[in-house]
Amino acid sequence: MSRFTHRALKKVGSSPGTLVHVGERKLDKVRLSVMHYTADSLTERTIDEVEEGLDLVKEGTTTWLNIDGTHDVALMENIGRRQGIHPLTLEDVLNTTQRPKSEVFDDYLFVVLKMLRYDTDEESIASEQISLILGENILISFQEAAGDVFEPVRERIRKGKGRIRGFGCDYLTYALIDAIVDHYFVILDHVGRRLEQLEEGIDNHPDAGLLDEIHAVRRELIYLRKQVWPLRDIISLLLKEESSFFSDTTRLFIRDVYDHTIQTIDTIESFRDILSGLQDLYLSIISNRMNEVMKVLTVIATIFIPVTFIAGIYGMNFTHMPELEWRWGYPLFWIVVVAVVVGMIFFFRKKRWL
Amino acid sequence: MSRFTHRALKKVGSSPGTLVHVGERKLDKVRLSVMHYTADSLTERTIDEVEEGLDLVKEGTTTWLNIDGTHDVALMENIGRRQGIHPLTLEDVLNTTQRPKSEVFDDYLFVVLKMLRYDTDEESIASEQISLILGENILISFQEAAGDVFEPVRERIRKGKGRIRGFGCDYLTYALIDAIVDHYFVILDHVGRRLEQLEEGIDNHPDAGLLDEIHAVRRELIYLRKQVWPLRDIISLLLKEESSFFSDTTRLFIRDVYDHTIQTIDTIESFRDILSGLQDLYLSIISNRMNEVMKVLTVIATIFIPVTFIAGIYGMNFTHMPELEWRWGYPLFWIVVVAVVVGMIFFFRKKRWL
Amino acid sequence: MSRFTHRALKKVGSSPGTLVHVGERKLDKVRLSVMHYTADSLTERTIDEVEEGLDLVKEGTTTWLNIDGTHDVALMENIGRRQGIHPLTLEDVLNTTQRPKSEVFDDYLFVVLKMLRYDTDEESIASEQISLILGENILISFQEAAGDVFEPVRERIRKGKGRIRGFGCDYLTYALIDAIVDHYFVILDHVGRRLEQLEEGIDNHPDAGLLDEIHAVRRELIYLRKQVWPLRDIISLLLKEESSFFSDTTRLFIRDVYDHTIQTIDTIESFRDILSGLQDLYLSIISNRMNEVMKVLTVIATIFIPVTFIAGIYGMNFTHMPELEWRWGYPLFWIVVVAVVVGMIFFFRKKRWL
Amino acid sequence: MSRFTHRALKKVGSSPGTLVHVGERKLDKVRLSVMHYTADSLTERTIDEVEEGLDLVKEGTTTWLNIDGTHDVALMENIGRRQGIHPLTLEDVLNTTQRPKSEVFDDYLFVVLKMLRYDTDEESIASEQISLILGENILISFQEAAGDVFEPVRERIRKGKGRIRGFGCDYLTYALIDAIVDHYFVILDHVGRRLEQLEEGIDNHPDAGLLDEIHAVRRELIYLRKQVWPLRDIISLLLKEESSFFSDTTRLFIRDVYDHTIQTIDTIESFRDILSGLQDLYLSIISNRMNEVMKVLTVIATIFIPVTFIAGIYGMNFTHMPELEWRWGYPLFWIVVVAVVVGMIFFFRKKRWL
Amino acid sequence: MSRFTHRALKKVGSSPGTLVHVGERKLDKVRLSVMHYTADSLTERTIDEVEEGLDLVKEGTTTWLNIDGTHDVALMENIGRRQGIHPLTLEDVLNTTQRPKSEVFDDYLFVVLKMLRYDTDEESIASEQISLILGENILISFQEAAGDVFEPVRERIRKGKGRIRGFGCDYLTYALIDAIVDHYFVILDHVGRRLEQLEEGIDNHPDAGLLDEIHAVRRELIYLRKQVWPLRDIISLLLKEESSFFSDTTRLFIRDVYDHTIQTIDTIESFRDILSGLQDLYLSIISNRMNEVMKVLTVIATIFIPVTFIAGIYGMNFTHMPELEWRWGYPLFWIVVVAVVVGMIFFFRKKRWL
Repeated sequence: MSRFTHRALKKVGSSPGTLVHVGERKLDKVRLSVMHYTADSLTERTIDEVEEGLDLVKEGTTTWLNIDGTHDVALMENIGRRQGIHPLTLEDVLNTTQRPKSEVFDDYLFVVLKMLRYDTDEESIASEQISLILGENILISFQEAAGDVFEPVRERIRKGKGRIRGFGCDYLTYALIDAIVDHYFVILDHVGRRLEQLEEGIDNHPDAGLLDEIHAVRRELIYLRKQVWPLRDIISLLLKEESSFFSDTTRLFIRDVYDHTIQTIDTIESFRDILSGLQDLYLSIISNRMNEVMKVLTVIATIFIPVTFIAGIYGMNFTHMPELEWRWGYPLFWIVVVAVVVGMIFFFRKKRWL
Repeated sequence: MSRFTHRALKKVGSSPGTLVHVGERKLDKVRLSVMHYTADSLTERTIDEVEEGLDLVKEGTTTWLNIDGTHDVALMENIGRRQGIHPLTLEDVLNTTQRPKSEVFDDYLFVVLKMLRYDTDEESIASEQISLILGENILISFQEAAGDVFEPVRERIRKGKGRIRGFGCDYLTYALIDAIVDHYFVILDHVGRRLEQLEEGIDNHPDAGLLDEIHAVRRELIYLRKQVWPLRDIISLLLKEESSFFSDTTRLFIRDVYDHTIQTIDTIESFRDILSGLQDLYLSIISNRMNEVMKVLTVIATIFIPVTFIAGIYGMNFTHMPELEWRWGYPLFWIVVVAVVVGMIFFFRKKRWL
Repeated sequence: MSRFTHRALKKVGSSPGTLVHVGERKLDKVRLSVMHYTADSLTERTIDEVEEGLDLVKEGTTTWLNIDGTHDVALMENIGRRQGIHPLTLEDVLNTTQRPKSEVFDDYLFVVLKMLRYDTDEESIASEQISLILGENILISFQEAAGDVFEPVRERIRKGKGRIRGFGCDYLTYALIDAIVDHYFVILDHVGRRLEQLEEGIDNHPDAGLLDEIHAVRRELIYLRKQVWPLRDIISLLLKEESSFFSDTTRLFIRDVYDHTIQTIDTIESFRDILSGLQDLYLSIISNRMNEVMKVLTVIATIFIPVTFIAGIYGMNFTHMPELEWRWGYPLFWIVVVAVVVGMIFFFRKKRWL
Repeated sequence: MSRFTHRALKKVGSSPGTLVHVGERKLDKVRLSVMHYTADSLTERTIDEVEEGLDLVKEGTTTWLNIDGTHDVALMENIGRRQGIHPLTLEDVLNTTQRPKSEVFDDYLFVVLKMLRYDTDEESIASEQISLILGENILISFQEAAGDVFEPVRERIRKGKGRIRGFGCDYLTYALIDAIVDHYFVILDHVGRRLEQLEEGIDNHPDAGLLDEIHAVRRELIYLRKQVWPLRDIISLLLKEESSFFSDTTRLFIRDVYDHTIQTIDTIESFRDILSGLQDLYLSIISNRMNEVMKVLTVIATIFIPVTFIAGIYGMNFTHMPELEWRWGYPLFWIVVVAVVVGMIFFFRKKRWL
Repeated sequence: MSRFTHRALKKVGSSPGTLVHVGERKLDKVRLSVMHYTADSLTERTIDEVEEGLDLVKEGTTTWLNIDGTHDVALMENIGRRQGIHPLTLEDVLNTTQRPKSEVFDDYLFVVLKMLRYDTDEESIASEQISLILGENILISFQEAAGDVFEPVRERIRKGKGRIRGFGCDYLTYALIDAIVDHYFVILDHVGRRLEQLEEGIDNHPDAGLLDEIHAVRRELIYLRKQVWPLRDIISLLLKEESSFFSDTTRLFIRDVYDHTIQTIDTIESFRDILSGLQDLYLSIISNRMNEVMKVLTVIATIFIPVTFIAGIYGMNFTHMPELEWRWGYPLFWIVVVAVVVGMIFFFRKKRWL
């Protein structure tokens, strides 16, 4: 958890708006790719200089400039100068420890989101910061590393499927946000399965290992919640925002994303409730089983203690112990022992302790 | 719980507004039925083609087109085209994992609700998604499967009882929502009875099985809460909505449904409170009883330990143990034993440990 | 708790606005009484037909029609027709499982409240639904059963004490609501005394019975809370309501009732806090005492275990055990035993376990 | 806690606005004192008749009429008539079980506050109700008993220190409220010290007595919270209030009191957090120590049980037990015993149970 | 915690607006320093008289007057008179126990913040109150002691780096607030590391010392929360504030600080969640391990108790015990013992208690 704060510390004390890359450098070289399309045509290529992409921007066409890797400060300044982007925005793009947020500027709309993916190797949720800058006829997206959840969107653009080619940049922005939010359900599905496994585990073999599992799921939910909660405000702001970044048509679709976000939040809250229920159940079962063990064991011990005492008496070496001489002393001893044991069992049964 | 996310996953990555059926297919064949009525006349029949129903729509009459089964994509597109329904709405109808919601469009009002029924065979709450599209003189309702809670409404239409035949589509919409919300009380009644059984069980035989029962009721309440909470906003929106989908008369009735929703939410919250109280009570009783057992048993053990020691002493084989030779050694032993036992009992009593 | 839902079920499926009595029938025969007064004159009588009462209504006079028993559907329809009352209102009056609420109609104001009384025989809170319909120069009150908390109000009317005779129907409405809210303090006083007894009980003899008591008070508070919370909104609505049901003078008095309601809610919340504090205290005391017992007992057991072992050694029958032959073997045995016991006590003391 | 409700019961059923003193009568005789001042002059005296005070009121001067003891109904009616005070206000003054509140009337402003003092003799918080009526050029303050926290204010008036003599009645009102709120810090300081003692006690000697102390502090905090929370709304209302009771200058000072109130609320909430943290810590320490004791004791017992069994074997009187005849039988016995003991200690160490 | 209230007590009873220094005096002598700059020039010096600084103020230049030590009442009055600062503001500056807040006056803006630093020697968070008064062309900052987090800001001014020299006083105010908020991340990083250590400690060696550590972190978080929560409102007020203290450019930067504040609050809340998760985990692990110990030990004890009883039987001295004479009595005894032990182990295994 202090991985987060470690990075943020790099920035402390520096002048605001100074472009310093904050975070882990996940890529060696920045990779630029551009998709330029209208309803009829499509150009898609990897470029070396950012200008190659920016020069394509033209009224009536859509340019999507995607940048993998955010540590190239010179490149950022270049883009900032060309597109008139505020230094604070660039600073936010470079600082990969941002909280999700959206900001409306005069010339562009700025959205920061967390793209979550489940890393099956490390069995943990991997987070990557996505920054979107929606300008006139251009959408610039910044990613921390190569690899993303946008492949289906690209596929739709390539195949000209759905509305995407006919609509503009705002619809593309929506499509990317939608792809990210949709992917949250994959994460939730994973967490849901872990909860199911936990529940099954508690029913079948409630051992100490489950505690660590419960704790791990809990931390995942805390993390998820921190990433997803701000989304509600972000998308709500996009919906209410009065400038003309989004057409009315696109706004309808964004309302859809909003519903999905609410559904995500609802599910996370339900999962938290279910998890805390499972933890209570686990602890109660462990404690119940423990009590069961202790009770039976103590009952056994208690039955033998008095009869051991009786045996002890007749192991004494007093010169004058009349019972020892009795003809039926030993059988009598057994009768007394059996009587005591039966009596105690009867007593325990009556008290429902057995 | 991940049954829900499994279904939702089908949609991830697909183009928004693409009609893909998401969820379990509960019916083999889609079943269309139509009720067409005015205050004086009524036609009710099962139809094969949706056009048969849509052609009936006429000013001054009410047409209720009910569709059981939502997986027929072609049919949906057909309706969408004829009635001018937005692709996102159709997508929502097909996705049976929707969160309850209501949306106002220019030409129609869209409401998604969860119809809850108690499945007595599986002893669990069964949920079915109901989508209502209220257009001009027509109400289209989509159900996941055959069988619903609307039979009393149909009966009232058939018999011309109450206001229903005289009023229009908006009143019918209200009547259906009312039927669904009314049915929540049946579910609540069931949960209430389980709580009563739990309480009785805790008083009479608090054993480990109750824990599972408590956990099961808890999950039911979490589920119910997730379904019912959004209703408040939905119906509140219908009340405030400024367009003319609802007449003032109908709005009065919707205020009534609103009251019922609030009452449902109140009851769920009370049930949660009561349940967590029962759980605390159960755990305390178990723990109290356990302590009681342990205490008495330990007291018994402790009384016998010192006297067993005394018996052990006189079992020793030292050559020189004067007590062993004493004439009254053995009776004296018994006197000491009785004194120790009485002393300890007295001590425990005084300390109120017995 | 499912008594509530049992009743409500009767209504499920029926046409809204259909007059069906929902709830327990607490009276055999409906009883009508009327008070008709101006500042100078007063008529009070029991009547057979509701028309006798309604005919008295006249500008400048106040008519209070009180109806004990709400199961007479014909009577209700009669009143509804004469006074222009909406069917939904009549339905709400008949359904004695309503949540407290207030509604403003064009011609009248409708308030549903719960009158709470402490039933000293059954030692539980008895609830009765009171519906008030404030029309022009008339106040109609519906009660489930005979017997109410309005006697002091009637007395004030009879004796012409206070402002009541001089003011109109709105002041009477206020006076009745005030009487009901005032009576909540009697209930709170009772709960407060139970809390005091609980606290005393925990200090003096914390035994298992207190758990049931704590649970019972908890359920009472959950119940009270559910009845009192809605009041805040109800009375707040009466204060803000813009139509002319209440004169400015009366509104000042309603502000007073509002204060009392807030005070009631505050007290209930404090009681909940105190109760949960008491429960924690109780459980901690029980657990502390238990630990105390176990500790001392285990210490006793542990001291005797090693010395019993020593005694066991010299009870062995080995042919060659030099100690047995020693002259001072037996006294030495005692010295060792005392040394061990003293050593252990010293050790326990040092570790502060004793 | 039901002391509060006992008093309030006196009022139940009486006509609203009827002047009945509700609460404990803390003084035998009502005591009236008056301070009349301008920037230059000051008259201060104890008076017999309230008219002596009211006659002093004059434009440009400030009259502070302080009344200790609120049970003199005739006096109250007298003041009410002379100053045009609403009967409900007088009723609130007489009812010393009021919740803190402020109300704006046409001719005066009415504020009810709780003056809290720490009673060092009874070691509990003593509460006294202060009612302030701010009229034109006059401030009437009602106290339940003699003795208050206003002495520093009086001293400032007498010495003409600060702004107080130059400003009017509104500033005086502020000064009194400020004195009361300031005194809350004395109470908080006291509670803070109790928390410190608790923390120290938990570190050094966590015994059962601390539980009672924790419970006592908890109840104090619940009580404080109930008194201080309403203050926020009260003072916020004074700030927003649009009539001319407060000059802009005084309003600046009231903003200051508002800050203090927020600070008080913050501190109470922090104290609650800290207290519940301390309670958890205390219970965990007790339980940890208990476990520690039980563990070591059980280990000791468990080591001796097997060796006692071995000793028991050779205490048996079988005719044919070859070991008994062995030359080195007894030393061998000791070797086995030591081996078992060492083995078990080693095993416990390895498992980290010791 | 009552250190806070101790100081505040000094003020109780004094006239509002009276300048009394409340708090610990952290410096012997007040130290005044001034930075006076335009885009091109910079003067920085330590001064003796405050007038030297105030005389520098000129249109188009920026003067930053920094005062270390707030106990010099005469100096404060001097500044107040010269700059037209309200006595209440000066009082707030002197009272170093203020809650963070911001207030807009006609001539100046007043902000109180807490500068937090981690004191590595005492291993605790050290808090210092910073008051900022932003007037026309001047910013006066008050600190309790020498040493602050502003050095990077001064460095930027000296080197003319970034925007700071070109912009005015409002940007400087922002820069100082930003420096303070940035430093909160250092504190959070520290707390985050403590949480990591805690987590590691719980995994590796969960002993009683961790409880104190958990409690300490909890108190730190309560403290942090109390300091940081008010910031949200403060900065939100600066953003909304309508007067002209901040230029639109600076306001953009303040929006950035706002984001950081929200991020800080989010992180604190996450830390609280994680901490309470860790506490639950710790207690569960301790309790699980304890149960494990008790279980195995009790099993051992229980196995030996019956066989010790059997050994006791044959230690008895009855004259007539046929078994003692049997040729194979002793081997038989051993067979019985082994059978009992094996049987019990088998039974425990089957019940999964071992």
